[in-house]
Amino acid sequence: MIKTVLNPSRDQWEQLCRRPSAKKEDIAGSVREILYDVRAHGDSALRRLTMLYNGVELQSFRVTDEEKKRAGKSLTDDLKNAMLIAAGNIEKFHCSQLNNETPVETMPGIQCWRKSSAIEKVGLYIPGGNAPLFSTVLMLGIPARIAGCKEIILCTPPDKSGLVNPAILYVADMVGIKSVFKVGGAQAIAALAFGTESVPGVDKIFGPGNQYVTKAKELVQSEGIAIDMPAGPSEVLVIADEDANPSFVAADLISQAEHGTDSQVMLVTDSINLLEAVKKSLAEQLNDLPQSKALNESLYNSNLILMQSVEESICFSNLYAPEHVIIATKSALADSEKIINAGSVFIGSFSCESAGDYASGTNHTLPTNGHARSYSGLSVDSFMKKTTFQYISEEGLKKIGKVIETMAEAETLYGHRNAVSIRLKTISHE
Amino acid sequence: MIKTVLNPSRDQWEQLCRRPSAKKEDIAGSVREILYDVRAHGDSALRRLTMLYNGVELQSFRVTDEEKKRAGKSLTDDLKNAMLIAAGNIEKFHCSQLNNETPVETMPGIQCWRKSSAIEKVGLYIPGGNAPLFSTVLMLGIPARIAGCKEIILCTPPDKSGLVNPAILYVADMVGIKSVFKVGGAQAIAALAFGTESVPGVDKIFGPGNQYVTKAKELVQSEGIAIDMPAGPSEVLVIADEDANPSFVAADLISQAEHGTDSQVMLVTDSINLLEAVKKSLAEQLNDLPQSKALNESLYNSNLILMQSVEESICFSNLYAPEHVIIATKSALADSEKIINAGSVFIGSFSCESAGDYASGTNHTLPTNGHARSYSGLSVDSFMKKTTFQYISEEGLKKIGKVIETMAEAETLYGHRNAVSIRLKTISHE
Repeated sequence: MIKTVLNPSRDQWEQLCRRPSAKKEDIAGSVREILYDVRAHGDSALRRLTMLYNGVELQSFRVTDEEKKRAGKSLTDDLKNAMLIAAGNIEKFHCSQLNNETPVETMPGIQCWRKSSAIEKVGLYIPGGNAPLFSTVLMLGIPARIAGCKEIILCTPPDKSGLVNPAILYVADMVGIKSVFKVGGAQAIAALAFGTESVPGVDKIFGPGNQYVTKAKELVQSEGIAIDMPAGPSEVLVIADEDANPSFVAADLISQAEHGTDSQVMLVTDSINLLEAVKKSLAEQLNDLPQSKALNESLYNSNLILMQSVEESICFSNLYAPEHVIIATKSALADSEKIINAGSVFIGSFSCESAGDYASGTNHTLPTNGHARSYSGLSVDSFMKKTTFQYISEEGLKKIGKVIETMAEAETLYGHRNAVSIRLKTISHE
Repeated sequence: MIKTVLNPSRDQWEQLCRRPSAKKEDIAGSVREILYDVRAHGDSALRRLTMLYNGVELQSFRVTDEEKKRAGKSLTDDLKNAMLIAAGNIEKFHCSQLNNETPVETMPGIQCWRKSSAIEKVGLYIPGGNAPLFSTVLMLGIPARIAGCKEIILCTPPDKSGLVNPAILYVADMVGIKSVFKVGGAQAIAALAFGTESVPGVDKIFGPGNQYVTKAKELVQSEGIAIDMPAGPSEVLVIADEDANPSFVAADLISQAEHGTDSQVMLVTDSINLLEAVKKSLAEQLNDLPQSKALNESLYNSNLILMQSVEESICFSNLYAPEHVIIATKSALADSEKIINAGSVFIGSFSCESAGDYASGTNHTLPTNGHARSYSGLSVDSFMKKTTFQYISEEGLKKIGKVIETMAEAETLYGHRNAVSIRLKTISHE
């Protein structure tokens, strides 16, 4: 069961911030082989690996229009409506992330500006398995479309009968993804990175996956294919005071713990009464849920921590740098302004984390494992890159020329200096 | 000497876009050892490795105030003034990159927003060697300060007498970097990644370096330390028409080629007359420059390409995705709008690339090796991360609750559903 830590001293904090260490198998070798295989043999390697890992022989990897049509029919109207409302909110929030910058005249005659443009070809990976993560299709596909990516390629594993989960297909179609391929695992990442006869190669790869997918993304990244961010188990930290509703807090902890046995959930509070009430509510709610055994395992990695104050709790949270932080305190909004390191912040009693996972509008692809200290969550920015531009007039070069010459010479880069000198000479001869 | 390619067919383009392959020694093993050594033994490993690689025994790695003061005295006033003007322009342009986003109400009662905050601890690496890259201190240090990074740590190798290049120290002081350490190579990256008794560990590492530094950055990245971007040899592509000044173009090609024997420079033009004139001017200018032998080697990897039109030249440039692109055409400004994949764009006859390298205001840390297809150059953004926030009111949750429940259930995440249900129940009981 979840552990309780009362008033940890400051030098215990670092230890409390450590994530449960996953049993790391050494899979680099076998993933490297898969990458090499797909790079060398393209579709025929994909066919062989799909037989091996997904137990199905595929002639064609591309999902047909017919399959897409059929997918829609197998879903309830309730679910389709829910998807549509969620997509609308996600679209609305992500559209606000597009922004234009105005040119800056750094000196008379020197104009500098930046322009964002879409990454042309992007690949989205969606895992298969028991729980089909169609919500991730929304979270990756919508910003990719808003950014204006020309080619959006989605890979997801087929089941034993060679089909893809209908909810995934339906959402892909809804957000405008035309190319869906039935390829999973490290071989999907290889196909997206290097391209095969059927699957086009892309410039950046997004999406969650098991340890093989994660390792494959890491390995192709070192070959120059960009990836979204480092992966890790999901996590939540709740900051609560005595005003918080203990059953809400317990429900939020459980909700995150159900992601997997290696997830970590934390309560940090200044109220021992709340802590005890949450503990009690956790036990009660676990009884009512189906997967209580898996949940128990991940709660075992987790902590209820008593701190001196809300201030100190926030301080701890910034050191932990959680993927999600829920602030359930009297002055939640004001407290949220002190959050520095976090993927996404949920403010007040009714902002439950599952709202952000599905439907409020924010993205659910977020930095885990303390990476929120240096990484942002997924956004439209992730599907674009920025280019700087400059226009220097004759006047401008006359103003700045000497500065460049002096600095280039001090760096012993005489060619750099000369590119200016030759122009200044021409100007003075005019 | 530089090669000439006349009217390459479309299927030759891919080949022409290949960068010269560097002689890649297998240094991963030795770099891994250095990382392990520094992680395990801290300062004592740094001391040993600095003796081994820099030939100097250091008691303390931190540059003293006394050393900083002395540095300023050894530089000419001309150089100091040039640095100051460059810094002003860089500051001005990079300040314009700070932006605020306004909250979005995705549905009544659901507010979502993003906030940027500085990465707290960042490490800057500046190589030593013959050409002291003090300009890179400006390019890394100024955006770090504008972003608001609390700890900015600079590492740079000492020379044989245990001193650091005075220009580097002077600029570091000028941009407000307080902590400079005399550590170089892979051991500097290890110190920044893991921390030692003297060198504080950081969350993200920036800066150029040799193949050991590059490999070390790549390896610590896979342990979760963020890095600025993948490294590669510098490069320029010039798009020119018959109106361009051939000696300006030749000077720009040479200026980029002097970065190293593995650099690549390209001219893409629709005018055979210009191409021939550039070729002639290249030969003339090379005669006048000191390092003409090294230059010749990198020009050997380079091409002067004749295309059918400016349009086609731009098209090729977007496939090549150069670090720098110079547009020397009649309608340079209009043509620049068609550039999609590039690190930085220099428009017109007087916007020479060395302006951007030093002083116009844009950053000179840019994606090489085709990475401009998916990476942005360095900016204030690189020193910040964005956190999403959401506030959902009781009213808001009533609106969106059912949507979340439906989607969570379809993904078989019952804990996620329950976090909403338990709140909706409370609301309806009120």
